[in-house]
Amino acid sequence: MPPALLPDQDPRTPARIAASMHPVLGPDAVRAWFDEYARYSSATVTTTNLNRLEGWLIDPFTGDIRHRVGKFFTITGLAVDFPGGPVPRWQQPIIIQPEIGILGILVKEIDGVLHCLMQAKVEPGNPNGLQLSPTVQATRSNYTRVHGGKPVPYLEYFVDARQVIADVRQSEQGSWFLQKRNRNMIVEVDEDIEVLDGFRWMTLGDVHQLLAVDDVVNMDARTVLSCLPFAGVYDGDGRRESLVRSCSAGEGSLHSMGEVLSWITERRTRTEISTRTIPLAEVRGWYREPARIRHEDGLFFDVIGIGVTATGREVGNWMQPMLRPHGTGLVAFLVREIAGVLHVLVHARAEPGYVDVVELAPTVQCAPENYKHIPPPPYLDSVLAAGPDRTRFSAMLSEEGGRFYHARTSYRVVETDLDPLDEPPDFRWLTVHQLLDLLRHSHYVNVQARTMITCLHGMVAGLAGERTSR
Amino acid sequence: MPPALLPDQDPRTPARIAASMHPVLGPDAVRAWFDEYARYSSATVTTTNLNRLEGWLIDPFTGDIRHRVGKFFTITGLAVDFPGGPVPRWQQPIIIQPEIGILGILVKEIDGVLHCLMQAKVEPGNPNGLQLSPTVQATRSNYTRVHGGKPVPYLEYFVDARQVIADVRQSEQGSWFLQKRNRNMIVEVDEDIEVLDGFRWMTLGDVHQLLAVDDVVNMDARTVLSCLPFAGVYDGDGRRESLVRSCSAGEGSLHSMGEVLSWITERRTRTEISTRTIPLAEVRGWYREPARIRHEDGLFFDVIGIGVTATGREVGNWMQPMLRPHGTGLVAFLVREIAGVLHVLVHARAEPGYVDVVELAPTVQCAPENYKHIPPPPYLDSVLAAGPDRTRFSAMLSEEGGRFYHARTSYRVVETDLDPLDEPPDFRWLTVHQLLDLLRHSHYVNVQARTMITCLHGMVAGLAGERTSR
Repeated sequence: MPPALLPDQDPRTPARIAASMHPVLGPDAVRAWFDEYARYSSATVTTTNLNRLEGWLIDPFTGDIRHRVGKFFTITGLAVDFPGGPVPRWQQPIIIQPEIGILGILVKEIDGVLHCLMQAKVEPGNPNGLQLSPTVQATRSNYTRVHGGKPVPYLEYFVDARQVIADVRQSEQGSWFLQKRNRNMIVEVDEDIEVLDGFRWMTLGDVHQLLAVDDVVNMDARTVLSCLPFAGVYDGDGRRESLVRSCSAGEGSLHSMGEVLSWITERRTRTEISTRTIPLAEVRGWYREPARIRHEDGLFFDVIGIGVTATGREVGNWMQPMLRPHGTGLVAFLVREIAGVLHVLVHARAEPGYVDVVELAPTVQCAPENYKHIPPPPYLDSVLAAGPDRTRFSAMLSEEGGRFYHARTSYRVVETDLDPLDEPPDFRWLTVHQLLDLLRHSHYVNVQARTMITCLHGMVAGLAGERTSR
Repeated sequence: MPPALLPDQDPRTPARIAASMHPVLGPDAVRAWFDEYARYSSATVTTTNLNRLEGWLIDPFTGDIRHRVGKFFTITGLAVDFPGGPVPRWQQPIIIQPEIGILGILVKEIDGVLHCLMQAKVEPGNPNGLQLSPTVQATRSNYTRVHGGKPVPYLEYFVDARQVIADVRQSEQGSWFLQKRNRNMIVEVDEDIEVLDGFRWMTLGDVHQLLAVDDVVNMDARTVLSCLPFAGVYDGDGRRESLVRSCSAGEGSLHSMGEVLSWITERRTRTEISTRTIPLAEVRGWYREPARIRHEDGLFFDVIGIGVTATGREVGNWMQPMLRPHGTGLVAFLVREIAGVLHVLVHARAEPGYVDVVELAPTVQCAPENYKHIPPPPYLDSVLAAGPDRTRFSAMLSEEGGRFYHARTSYRVVETDLDPLDEPPDFRWLTVHQLLDLLRHSHYVNVQARTMITCLHGMVAGLAGERTSR
């Protein structure tokens, strides 16, 4: 007998996501859990001379910083040609990490409601110790146990996944990583699972509510949750808010999907950006001191070395290089209603580390301090000038604490009255459901925009610190 | 007043495509047009010593063959590591052509029916002179006029396209090109257009009917037409054939799209293939003779030089290197009904030239003559053993005649009774509408599978030499 055919998506998924968007624990309970667990899990981090990172080598010929068994990652140099870009040519240090890791959240129905197995996890770059993390954050080195540490708990559910809700490789910071991608997975299990120390079941609503609290939900959790297929989840709930309509696949949009795809094709064809790796020792405009590699004007980031003494992790002591950005990042979507549907102003942004030329980024994505010598990016003024009445979301969130030291970004959703018909060539007004369509595939939505998608989802459910509800 | 919102796709598109699938001219009229035009447009091709290609240099240090002003393309060497692949390690010559060209078909409603502006075009590698080609085949060198030839006619309609029906960059042969991509475009115009010598308006049906004739519809026309959004075109015509249902987005499939995307993610994560360019002079196992670069066992292909004297093209005389494959290629989809819907057995295939590890390929894609020393690929036996009663489509078609010399491939659609539940890890049964969904994006469907999609579309309309109509 031939097998039965399946529809494109499990028809129960939207209702199950909607039902999980109610917070059960509340932020105070999570805070208490963090405080309790922090007594068992902590990390002491000290900065260290780059020449004395145990386990790491500075290549005598190239100056590249690499792990002694060739795993984890390497810091090398990159030469970038970007004719027509705001800076047409530059060189910089960059992280090469070619292996594809897994960022995975395990979900399970408990009392009929989907719960996520979240982890309270310390990363050495976190400014505040513990953050709320996915079930699994595993580099390939982690799960092949190159470092000889403990096995990564729950990894087996992702390596041999059966009930997959989301599974897509997504890029990370293209200014700091060369062609880095992680596999973002949401996997459901039916069987009972032992909850280890430092893990806790919570609803999607619990996680989303914590997005409004500074530095709690980590970058990996935010990017995995952006891949949740939530378009249409709120279609039937009777609300007609423009943000709800923006998440509904049945609503129209300023541009058809064909137009959006053609625009991306055009930007990727027209943008000429080329890169080549060069020895780290030869990167122009950067200087090596014992404690760091720094830009001649003190801009962008330093490469530093750290030593970590941790409890509650795979291994207890290690040293590693990290990137320490200068200044606080600013990431913002300008949003406006168009014919009753909320649209976000998306930027087709080239970064040297992207696999495919440009990805869709928030309207503004920068560290304002870096614009001492060059004109500020478009729309930065609009974001900085917006008062609280126009700011629908604002939180300070951390970037990945395993590679970046105290990298904090102010994420904002800001209302605007900009004319929707006045789009620069590299900007387009898109709906949230269009971004969700693109998020099923690699190479389209960058990591900063994915954080913003997760925040917008929290705002749909009335969580995530939405300030106004017009 | 805010602008109106658009649906995802122009709702008139399916009906307009269906109406254009009726042939108007018929093959004889096209043949007569070709015969007539061949008197004005021809190419005399002679093979030439590789050291004496005017306009081309052999780099004295690397042996790479490149154009003297650094445009068009370069032939260099590639070292491939593919642990777990059928051959775990090899070196080969490969074409590098980083610029993204345009392959475009202009369409226009004439007497209420969409017509395509097709071109009778000679390419030096064509085994038979003229072939039916898109309106425009332009490398960036072409349209920036590096070669100082005539302008490419109709190119302006694609560079500033307004009514875009399809626009996506797609890969080409990943065994012969390193990361080559062309922009496949279908653009509609309303205004009157002068029809130049060598061009002719014809319906989609006319083009599809010619697919069943050997070596007429060229590779570029086939790949552009595969990007036509024809899912759902035949939904309302009352037919219930399994192939028609396979093209209907509303029908189910053995795997949901989420499962298919997760499978592709898994194959791309698991497959370890790495490449690095090396000097052509250092490629192991290949020998340079005055007239060609050849493999030590006479397998795969030769690099040869040719001299061309052409009329009716951009320039009249030129020389260039080409790849001349050994033997005839074989490309086939095994197909079967599953619950009344035709499914095709797709292979997640790694080729060294792909940008993103694997793309979806036909069930079988090989040159059978190359398998003297290694086991034949899976399912080759099933395809070769199939008689005429199981062969629903068969035609000999040429690969791109601007880079490949007499590269001919037998394209087949073959019925099978294979158990649909018995899928090897790198094969999956997909419907045609699932492949069409993926064809909206880059990196998914390889050029051989795109030719097969166009043939399947012709078969839906009862064209393209369908042998049985069950």
